[in-house]
Formats: sequence, structure tokens, C-alpha cells
Amino acid sequence: MEQDEIAVRIRDAIAPHADATTAYVASGMHPDHPFGDGKGKGPGRILLAARDEFFRVGYHGASTRDIAAAAGMSATAMYAHYHSKEAMLFRLCVLGSAAALEALRKASSAEVRPVQRLRSAVYAFAYWHAQNHVLARVAQWNIAALEPASFQVVASLRRATDLLMRSILLEGVAAGELLVPDLGATTLAILSLCIDIGRWYPSRSINTPEGIATPYVALVEAMVAPRGPSHA
Amino acid sequence: MEQDEIAVRIRDAIAPHADATTAYVASGMHPDHPFGDGKGKGPGRILLAARDEFFRVGYHGASTRDIAAAAGMSATAMYAHYHSKEAMLFRLCVLGSAAALEALRKASSAEVRPVQRLRSAVYAFAYWHAQNHVLARVAQWNIAALEPASFQVVASLRRATDLLMRSILLEGVAAGELLVPDLGATTLAILSLCIDIGRWYPSRSINTPEGIATPYVALVEAMVAPRGPSHA
Repeated sequence: MEQDEIAVRIRDAIAPHADATTAYVASGMHPDHPFGDGKGKGPGRILLAARDEFFRVGYHGASTRDIAAAAGMSATAMYAHYHSKEAMLFRLCVLGSAAALEALRKASSAEVRPVQRLRSAVYAFAYWHAQNHVLARVAQWNIAALEPASFQVVASLRRATDLLMRSILLEGVAAGELLVPDLGATTLAILSLCIDIGRWYPSRSINTPEGIATPYVALVEAMVAPRGPSHA
Repeated sequence: MEQDEIAVRIRDAIAPHADATTAYVASGMHPDHPFGDGKGKGPGRILLAARDEFFRVGYHGASTRDIAAAAGMSATAMYAHYHSKEAMLFRLCVLGSAAALEALRKASSAEVRPVQRLRSAVYAFAYWHAQNHVLARVAQWNIAALEPASFQVVASLRRATDLLMRSILLEGVAAGELLVPDLGATTLAILSLCIDIGRWYPSRSINTPEGIATPYVALVEAMVAPRGPSHA
């Protein structure tokens, strides 16, 4: 698929909103803005119902009948909005991946020192995955069920996320503020820590987004801090 | 549930073998010993078939009929070995969690300096999750489907894993070899990095267990390395 076509499919999944964060808030799924434009039962509830069913029993375990019932409409009426279960999953994956990427972009766009930029980026990405752990888990755990063309679109968002984190680290290395001997593994580890929050969050001892974002910033900073000769 | 009862249920899930690693190898699911005692179709293939179906479509998406067909037996014959789909999931979760814990125990039991003990522990735990990523993912992603009593058993294995990693870190702190300001978050982060391998492994650039275990040891070591005043 061409880059242009991928961009069009992302825009379509977000439309009529200008960005994924606004689309997510309007969808009624955002924890800070429950129900958004959805206002209870009806079309606005389809995505919310699909997300909750996929969260509960997984994509393959979810039935469109149960999703329609939870959204308060008939399966026929639902199909006027989403022609398939996969179309719902695709929109959820795009919203989740794109909104997380937007949170990372926003946090890392300030004109500050690289180490501060890394701190903001990790804080925002960890925070997003804790606050939005239901959508985060649904979007991560079910991508294998996407059709190839849908998968390509979501993969492009993940590649952009990976590239952005790499660029933050590289900037820090260039400025002499960070020590990153293995750029690929370090990028992977930082993103993995944040993404995995969607698996376990909340736990008995950590149940606020700040409660995990703050220590993870400190751990990542230690991971890439310049230091003298090894203690080994 | 009492600790004694939990221990009995773990032993039952591993029987007739003395430990989970041997039981896992004998099950035919271990990548280094495919088919184990199972020898192709038949009872020995049930767990393998269940694991692969849960991996493909999730616990709720998997049908016992498809599992029986993949194991080459009738559903009735299969029920003589496993009275329910949940019983298969329980055994998979116990084998996965207990074998990963055994790998961690074995790697960290040597009489070496704490920092070396941490290195071995992280290497072994990361390696295990890459090598056994199919079972690892099935055991992690479906635990919410376990019945409460089964869940308690698996949770006790995870608690033991957490406690072991904590004790390795604490020993390093006591010896002055490691700096761990937040023991809970650091333990969580190390385990999370390894467990999340089951989600993405293999990737295009990392497709051997060594390929992720080696850089993760270095990153974890940096995370807990004693250092001078912060560079901030």
C-alpha cells in the first residue's frame, strides 16, 4: 500500500475529527470524557460496546450480536455503520495507536534539553497507556486479527512511534546527554515497558497513571544515563 | 485457598513429573523437544492443540471441537482427559508460569556476586519468554478466563516470581552493588520487559532468544547501576 493511501485510511478512521485524540474523546470511550458525543445508546455506542466486548472475550470470542445488544441497536442497524466486526477493530486500533502517538508527539515537541524531552515523552506515553489501558490492550492484543491492508495502516502508526522514540534518544546522544549503546533494543525496551502497562494496569499497588509514569521516567533515565566505567 | 491446597494443585498439574520444566518438555509443546511423549496424534496432543488454538483465536474464541480435531480425537475422548476447556487453560497457565519461575530460580541459584546473579536471572527470564513465546503469551493473555480457584494458583506462582526478583535486587542493594530507589517499580519493570517479549517476539530484527536476552541484561544492569550525582 502506498503511503498516501495509508494516510487516507488513517484520516477516514478519524473523520470528521482533525486528530485521533479528538476523535477518541468524541467516541465516548475516553475515560475523562465518558460517552462523548455518543450520549448513551445508539450509533455512538457501537465502538464503546465493541471495545468492551473485545476486552472481555477477545476479538474472536466477541459476537456482533452481543456488540449490537450492548450498543442498544439491531445487528442490521449496526451494519449500516460498520460493515464488519473487523471494521470496528480497525477503527479501535487506529484510534488507540494514533492517539498514543499524538500523546508522545505533543510531549516531545517542546524546545527543551534532550534529557527533559525524553522525560516528558516517557511520562506521557506511560501515562497514556495506564489511563487508556482498556483501549490500549484491545488495540495491542488483537492486531493479528486485522486484514492485511488494515494491519499495514496500524503498522505504519507503530513504525512512526518507534521512529519518534529513536529520534528522541539520538538527539540526546548527539548532545552528549544520553548514553545509548544499542539504539534498537533501548527504543524497544522503552516502548515495551509502556505498552505492557495495558496488560497489568491497575495493580493492587499502582492504580493511578502518575503512579507508574513517574517511576518509569526515573528507570528509563537511569537506563540511558551517561556514566563512568562500569562497576562490574 | 490455603497454601497447602495451592501446592497440591500445582503438583497435580505437573504430575507425574517432578517439576514444571520436565512436564513441559514431556508435553510436546517445548520448542526444543517437539511432541515429547505425545508422539503425534492422541492424548499427548491435547495440550499442544489447546495452546495453538488459544494462541490463534484466544480462549473465548477457541472451540473444544476444533481442539479435539487438531488433537486427532473425538470431543468425548478428549473430555476423558480434560473435563473442560478451562482445565486445559489452567494446565497451560501453570506449566508456563511454573517453568518460567524454574528457569529464573535455576539461573539465580549460583553462588556468585549479586550483580552476576541479576545478570543470569534477567538473561534466563528473557530467554525463556522468547524461546517459549507461544506458551508465554497464551498463559499471560488468558488468565482472566480462569475460574477463581485456578486463578489463585497461577497468581501464587506469579507472586513467587515477583518475590524472587525482589530478593535478587535486595541482595544487590545490601552488597552495595546495585542502586534501587524504587524496589517495587524496578521489579515490575524487569518482569514486564521479559513478559512483554511474548507479545512481539520474534520481530524482523530480533529473532533469537539471545538477540533479546543479551541487550536486556545490559539495559537492566544500567537501570540499577550505582552512579555519581545525576547528570540532570
